[in-house]
Amino acid sequence: MIPNGTKHNELRQLVRSQLELLLESGNLQGAKSLLIPVQPVDIAEAIEGLPKATQLIAFRLLSKAEAIEVYEYLNKEVQQALIQEFKRQEVLDVVDKMSPDDRARMFDELPAKIVRRLLAQLSPKERQATAILLGYGEDTAGRIMTPEYISLRENLTVSQTLERIRNQANASEVVYYLYVKDNSRRLTGIVSLKDLVIAAPDTTLAEIMARDVVFVHTDTDQEEVARTIQRYDIVALPVVDSEERLVGVVTVDDVIDIIEQEATEDIYALGGVQSDGDSYFQTNLLTVARRRVVWLFVLLLTNTVTGAIISSHKALLEQAVVLTVFMPLLTGTGGNVGAQSSTVVIRGLNTDEIKNMGAGKVVFREAAAGVLLGLILGTVATVWAYLFQGDLAVAMSVGISLVAIALLASVAGSALPFVFRSFGLDPALMSAPFITTAVDVLGVLIYFSIARAILGL
Amino acid sequence: MIPNGTKHNELRQLVRSQLELLLESGNLQGAKSLLIPVQPVDIAEAIEGLPKATQLIAFRLLSKAEAIEVYEYLNKEVQQALIQEFKRQEVLDVVDKMSPDDRARMFDELPAKIVRRLLAQLSPKERQATAILLGYGEDTAGRIMTPEYISLRENLTVSQTLERIRNQANASEVVYYLYVKDNSRRLTGIVSLKDLVIAAPDTTLAEIMARDVVFVHTDTDQEEVARTIQRYDIVALPVVDSEERLVGVVTVDDVIDIIEQEATEDIYALGGVQSDGDSYFQTNLLTVARRRVVWLFVLLLTNTVTGAIISSHKALLEQAVVLTVFMPLLTGTGGNVGAQSSTVVIRGLNTDEIKNMGAGKVVFREAAAGVLLGLILGTVATVWAYLFQGDLAVAMSVGISLVAIALLASVAGSALPFVFRSFGLDPALMSAPFITTAVDVLGVLIYFSIARAILGL
Repeated sequence: MIPNGTKHNELRQLVRSQLELLLESGNLQGAKSLLIPVQPVDIAEAIEGLPKATQLIAFRLLSKAEAIEVYEYLNKEVQQALIQEFKRQEVLDVVDKMSPDDRARMFDELPAKIVRRLLAQLSPKERQATAILLGYGEDTAGRIMTPEYISLRENLTVSQTLERIRNQANASEVVYYLYVKDNSRRLTGIVSLKDLVIAAPDTTLAEIMARDVVFVHTDTDQEEVARTIQRYDIVALPVVDSEERLVGVVTVDDVIDIIEQEATEDIYALGGVQSDGDSYFQTNLLTVARRRVVWLFVLLLTNTVTGAIISSHKALLEQAVVLTVFMPLLTGTGGNVGAQSSTVVIRGLNTDEIKNMGAGKVVFREAAAGVLLGLILGTVATVWAYLFQGDLAVAMSVGISLVAIALLASVAGSALPFVFRSFGLDPALMSAPFITTAVDVLGVLIYFSIARAILGL
Repeated sequence: MIPNGTKHNELRQLVRSQLELLLESGNLQGAKSLLIPVQPVDIAEAIEGLPKATQLIAFRLLSKAEAIEVYEYLNKEVQQALIQEFKRQEVLDVVDKMSPDDRARMFDELPAKIVRRLLAQLSPKERQATAILLGYGEDTAGRIMTPEYISLRENLTVSQTLERIRNQANASEVVYYLYVKDNSRRLTGIVSLKDLVIAAPDTTLAEIMARDVVFVHTDTDQEEVARTIQRYDIVALPVVDSEERLVGVVTVDDVIDIIEQEATEDIYALGGVQSDGDSYFQTNLLTVARRRVVWLFVLLLTNTVTGAIISSHKALLEQAVVLTVFMPLLTGTGGNVGAQSSTVVIRGLNTDEIKNMGAGKVVFREAAAGVLLGLILGTVATVWAYLFQGDLAVAMSVGISLVAIALLASVAGSALPFVFRSFGLDPALMSAPFITTAVDVLGVLIYFSIARAILGL
């Protein structure tokens, strides 16, 4: 048994180091025994950690069934390297028996030349299944579903069903549910394995099946698929075509990865980093720089405008250079208030939490919070500025500006995500530069105008 | 059948508006028929949207089995309101039959007085189950597991097992797996329902069970539980006590919510908003302000230091007020470069993506990216500053400072998350204020020092 937590991680480390030692010393039998109680995902990780030359040797130690499972967990670099070195028969053995959705995902990332060669070598049935999946748009239910499932007629009894399942050639098609279809292949109900095993042997599927089936279409976006599985607490979601005929099933394990990937994309967007969905730490330095520099240039441009405003107020600053002391405080705090509002609203929009709440209500709420925060911080800042520089007029300017900037920032931060969403743009990606611009440019303008009025300059 | 996507949302809206109309006109039979094909989670949402006075009426329309399911999905305000208005017998009917993990979660959020009253009214078996769960630490596997599962001996045959399951009183205990225990109640293997239905009737559980069971302990953190389920693509994870006896099971639907909740916490922390794990849009304005003001005060303090540095350079600024024009550009860009580095590193740490990568390697990589970005942006900024203000010495100061600040920011942004994690602090929460401080304070110092040297002031 593989223990949990820290012990578990230690064991994984141990497997990795041991495997390399055993392979180096040529003890293949020992390496084989070492891997027997290890889970496929952990074996994949251990193989990824090996020197390139020994990866194929380690992979060949696995039984055929295990090799297929492990192969699905390997990262694309190792998958490709192994495919190049496989003999023709090995490729057939492994790739032909992968589940069609995992295979389609792998083909997505392989060079076109290799994909054509592999497709040609697959058995006709598997080739067709893969081609169909690859025909659906990226990030849709059609692309992530598996076309393998068991469908039955509703007049079968429970014992007939159990017998039929036992005689079925491919066990991988039984997952969590059986699907009931009518004569025109339309989905009419589902039977969970649980319902099947607790039902009396002579009841028919029609009596135990659930008729209120939640399903999606092949072109439904994968994020919507994930939200549906999450909302209804189900482990497998049927996918139907435009005529509502069952064509596949999306399972919960794929959905967990999608939810995490979408969250990472949100986090990256809020942090000003482009994400292409693939692993950051597998990409090279130039790609990293390219993904960040666009966003930094946008901000450089923003700062040009802010700089121009400061430049046009040089005469004011020459008369009262003390005003510059509080510039970072005002733009900094404004930026943070705006970031807080937009973070909450963007996350709420993306997790559907504020789907049923009007934009007006959200923005009003955030504006109220902004004024409240502005008053608290403005009071503190006024007192502090007075104690620090001993100039009441300057201190008043700072305090009043802070309230105005906090209001502006919270309204911009909460309203812009709605505006961008209504244009069909990702709020997480688009809002940040505009909020920064609004707060920086207008903040400096507000500060200088208020200071000019109060100082009488 | 409930259709997907937009159509589905429309239908949910329709149920909500129709339900209110039917209840207002006193058409209880119509309301009852309306709800029959609707999923429990959608019924719960519809009830939450009703005026307070009619929520209980709507709830009473449901069948007993349905009422329990719907009740589990209601938010805590409505759960509490209903409990207050229930008659004694109704409370027993609903709360006694909730699954123990959902009940424990609900009790966590109810006032202590109501919890004591409810515990006293529960049947002894359910009371004990709830008390045990409530005894485990918050956010641990023990608190989120359900103690209901089926465990069997390994010498049973498949047909004996099926028969036993059918005669079992409580069907809710059958989920996705059956657990096999030895004489000292230790977990020795698991049998999935799939393995059970495809196996020949006369095979024994010992022959078909998987012996390499992944499990966690009752005190394992819920995030570790979620990562384990995600890593091994399983739908239910056994939980054992310190003597490795099976005590409960965590299912995948709870885990999806945990992964999303943890992502929201990360996003909030990066955006400078405290999160208490509950729904933001259910909290009042003062709580909202309280959660944000702490972070804003930290930044106010930071800006005090920056302000003091600017103040101590007033003589320099009076001689060359043009330097103030580029202050927002330098601190702003520095802040963004730092935010990018820390976003990537924090997300990588929290999703385990960089678990096996040394801190040194990550920081070096980020420092290289920082220098690269600094050189690109510094060149652009130098040219722009020269064209804008016509002063080569100032333009050079800006460009050189930008390279130095980008390097500083990327090192601080990538190193601080590791530092905070090694002290057992949440990197997402702690890193941001320190990165901002370092970049603002040191950035201004670097800029003024370089400018002073180049301008010869």
